[in-house]
Amino acid sequence: MSERDPIDLLYQPRSIAIIGAKKRAFGFGAGLPRFLLDIGVDPDRLHLVNPKEKEIDGLPVYPTVKEVPGDVDLAIVIVPALAVPRVIGNCIEKRVKVVNVQSAGFAEVGAEGAKAQEEMGRLAREAGIRIIGPNCVGVVNVPGRFATCEVDLDAIRPGGISVVAQSGVFGNVLMDWAPSQDIALGKLATIGNRADIDESDMLDYLGKDPATRVIVMYLEGVKDGRRFIEAARRTSLEKPVLVYKSGETEAGKKATLSHTGSLSGPDAIFDGVCRQAGVIRARDLLELFDMARAFEACPLPKGRRALVVTGSGSQGAMAADRLVQCGMELPEMTAESVAELRSQAPDWMNVGNPLDIGPSGLFALGMKLAMTDSHIDAVIAVPIAPWKVIKPALEMRTEEVSRQMYVAPALLDEAAERTLLIAPMGHPDWVKTVKRFFGPRAPAMATPQNAARALAAMCEYREWREVRTT
Amino acid sequence: MSERDPIDLLYQPRSIAIIGAKKRAFGFGAGLPRFLLDIGVDPDRLHLVNPKEKEIDGLPVYPTVKEVPGDVDLAIVIVPALAVPRVIGNCIEKRVKVVNVQSAGFAEVGAEGAKAQEEMGRLAREAGIRIIGPNCVGVVNVPGRFATCEVDLDAIRPGGISVVAQSGVFGNVLMDWAPSQDIALGKLATIGNRADIDESDMLDYLGKDPATRVIVMYLEGVKDGRRFIEAARRTSLEKPVLVYKSGETEAGKKATLSHTGSLSGPDAIFDGVCRQAGVIRARDLLELFDMARAFEACPLPKGRRALVVTGSGSQGAMAADRLVQCGMELPEMTAESVAELRSQAPDWMNVGNPLDIGPSGLFALGMKLAMTDSHIDAVIAVPIAPWKVIKPALEMRTEEVSRQMYVAPALLDEAAERTLLIAPMGHPDWVKTVKRFFGPRAPAMATPQNAARALAAMCEYREWREVRTT
Repeated sequence: MSERDPIDLLYQPRSIAIIGAKKRAFGFGAGLPRFLLDIGVDPDRLHLVNPKEKEIDGLPVYPTVKEVPGDVDLAIVIVPALAVPRVIGNCIEKRVKVVNVQSAGFAEVGAEGAKAQEEMGRLAREAGIRIIGPNCVGVVNVPGRFATCEVDLDAIRPGGISVVAQSGVFGNVLMDWAPSQDIALGKLATIGNRADIDESDMLDYLGKDPATRVIVMYLEGVKDGRRFIEAARRTSLEKPVLVYKSGETEAGKKATLSHTGSLSGPDAIFDGVCRQAGVIRARDLLELFDMARAFEACPLPKGRRALVVTGSGSQGAMAADRLVQCGMELPEMTAESVAELRSQAPDWMNVGNPLDIGPSGLFALGMKLAMTDSHIDAVIAVPIAPWKVIKPALEMRTEEVSRQMYVAPALLDEAAERTLLIAPMGHPDWVKTVKRFFGPRAPAMATPQNAARALAAMCEYREWREVRTT
Repeated sequence: MSERDPIDLLYQPRSIAIIGAKKRAFGFGAGLPRFLLDIGVDPDRLHLVNPKEKEIDGLPVYPTVKEVPGDVDLAIVIVPALAVPRVIGNCIEKRVKVVNVQSAGFAEVGAEGAKAQEEMGRLAREAGIRIIGPNCVGVVNVPGRFATCEVDLDAIRPGGISVVAQSGVFGNVLMDWAPSQDIALGKLATIGNRADIDESDMLDYLGKDPATRVIVMYLEGVKDGRRFIEAARRTSLEKPVLVYKSGETEAGKKATLSHTGSLSGPDAIFDGVCRQAGVIRARDLLELFDMARAFEACPLPKGRRALVVTGSGSQGAMAADRLVQCGMELPEMTAESVAELRSQAPDWMNVGNPLDIGPSGLFALGMKLAMTDSHIDAVIAVPIAPWKVIKPALEMRTEEVSRQMYVAPALLDEAAERTLLIAPMGHPDWVKTVKRFFGPRAPAMATPQNAARALAAMCEYREWREVRTT
């Protein structure tokens, strides 16, 4: 039988031990046994460990992991920091494949914690077992329906965006946030203080994972700069890697040191590393996940020529400003497209780029031309309508409104090679309506600015990769 | 009887004419008569004008405004561009006080349109009547329940944030967006191409309007630089003025020229104007309205010393990074506060700034000290909890959870002088819960970064004003 990758066993363990399992009550990790049973873990393959308990949630409890019958692929450790070294020793004796240390109280609290953490990593490496943590909540596998922490798996749309987060809480918050943001998640790893498994290991694993299409990272610092550059470059050749990094300033660095014991170097150096390795940086979480959704859903633009189609001159100008600031071009459409639009457009309508449709009823025509015009590589659509006006129209004569305002699904299918992002603004029901009309091939960005930034990021990535693969 | 300010009559007209009123159907301005009746305009004071109709929505229709019986405070003009000059002539003859020209097709479409628009402005000035527009949707008065365009007044929370937008559609989108963003709106003006009333007039009006606490502007260009600087400076001494300006780049400038016929100058010059006049610039709409809500709800910080209280090291680091980038300080709390926290904190907890509470149950204590500590001027709270864990706890023992996690309302009242922003992240129900616990005195920002930026903007504004008023 061939050895399975221990990181793979983290995401789909055949048997699990929870070390430090508690009688169910309020508090960190307390609901975990019940949660694992609820998501379908076989009770015969779920083993609880706690010297003070005999039975929890109907399962027998063993004094140490050594008494657990059979092999243990994954041990989840939620004991106090002082007890962790002994527990790791037991895991090594038991030949556990991978250990998720969720306990906090290591490098993030001072020198002694850092020493204990280092020792833990050394022991694991010598024994040939892997550790994820300490100070994290482990992993979530959305399509595979497994998690080492309590999350609402049913609420999250499974997809190809995989996430590596240094912070456990970040992972939890993301899982809570993802459904309302329609972020289609694959595999999440919270790597905490990185006694062993670090961001470079995760890049290598997710780079080869066929289910992962985009990798998103939240980092507070890089453990080994050289390894990171190499892993990031290797991975970027396979799929996009997007990063938000804290510790951009001295105060942020101090915060990350006390949070996950990370030493983050000068921000400009990290910036340079990212550029070299084809890694895209984001400035806040909205931007980070807008970019992730764009990369996941869209083909990369073939060039930097973008067209903005909008019903709002103001939103169009905002998108245009940000596009130019991000190094994109806003060319004129072909003479044929312009002539076709002019022949139908009212006098006041601006046939340019942005293409400001206004209330002309020509949004669908504009979109048809935008998606096929040979001067254009990518399209940002910012459909706008006052809800009070459009709502009765939508209710009363959906067909006419559809013809005037929306792109035919057939057109979107035909123009499948063209990158298309939307930035619907206004009433929540209007935003929902627009998303439904455009469907999943045109991800919705939080702002026209974010749409512009996402397009530019896709171009940067394509250009970086082209140079290195041709 | 003293003359009322014509801009005031825009917001609360005693009598209205709709010139170009249409039989109700889909399309721009078509539902306006019905809408005005529905929001409570007295049918005896609502007059419809259209030479082709005799009756609409049960109201008589006059061939021109001149046949309307009695005085007309406000004429709303929705006729084609070519008919506008004749209509303006009629309004002058009728001695209408203020005219809202909603029609498009003027400076934004070329030289002839610009000429017609200029002529319209000249005639109005000579005759002593005021015009708002063309190419806009006029005004909305949320607390006063009046609007010249169809918006859902019942959905919008009345408040002290007044908005001046060059774009009509921007105004409409904002009205649709405001309820879901909990933006408490006062008066909105869309000024379009500014044949007469411009951003400087509106600044002077809103600066003196006692119901307006914060002024938010969407500009595509400034009509008269000198007047704007003076009006902005005057107004900033009274209340904060926040601006998002399109046309930051050449492409954006081109877009604004064809949108509202605005010539926007070099962006760096506008930046300098804003700094001189105490005007705060925002980078996107989320930031713009986050800042507006912060200015409306909070006292200005007395200094730049900020403390971040969080349950998430990652969110804390993000806030810290942006605070420092915006010129804020993150001092240590007093020795007393630190000692009180240390005496109750678990080993792993980081008693610093950010104050990362983690799952210690000390959030309420941290907040109590943050709101009273003498080293601190302003607080950003980023309360975090995994929803799957906190939800049953909230349901089962609200009191204990409240004690551990939330700030007592009495404390918030006592510390009324301290600026407090929150940036709740995660599950939508968690975000709602946090907002409810904190109440309206702690506005919720979209991201920790936006909270940091809003605090810094409040400091910039306070410092600007202090120098000029002491």
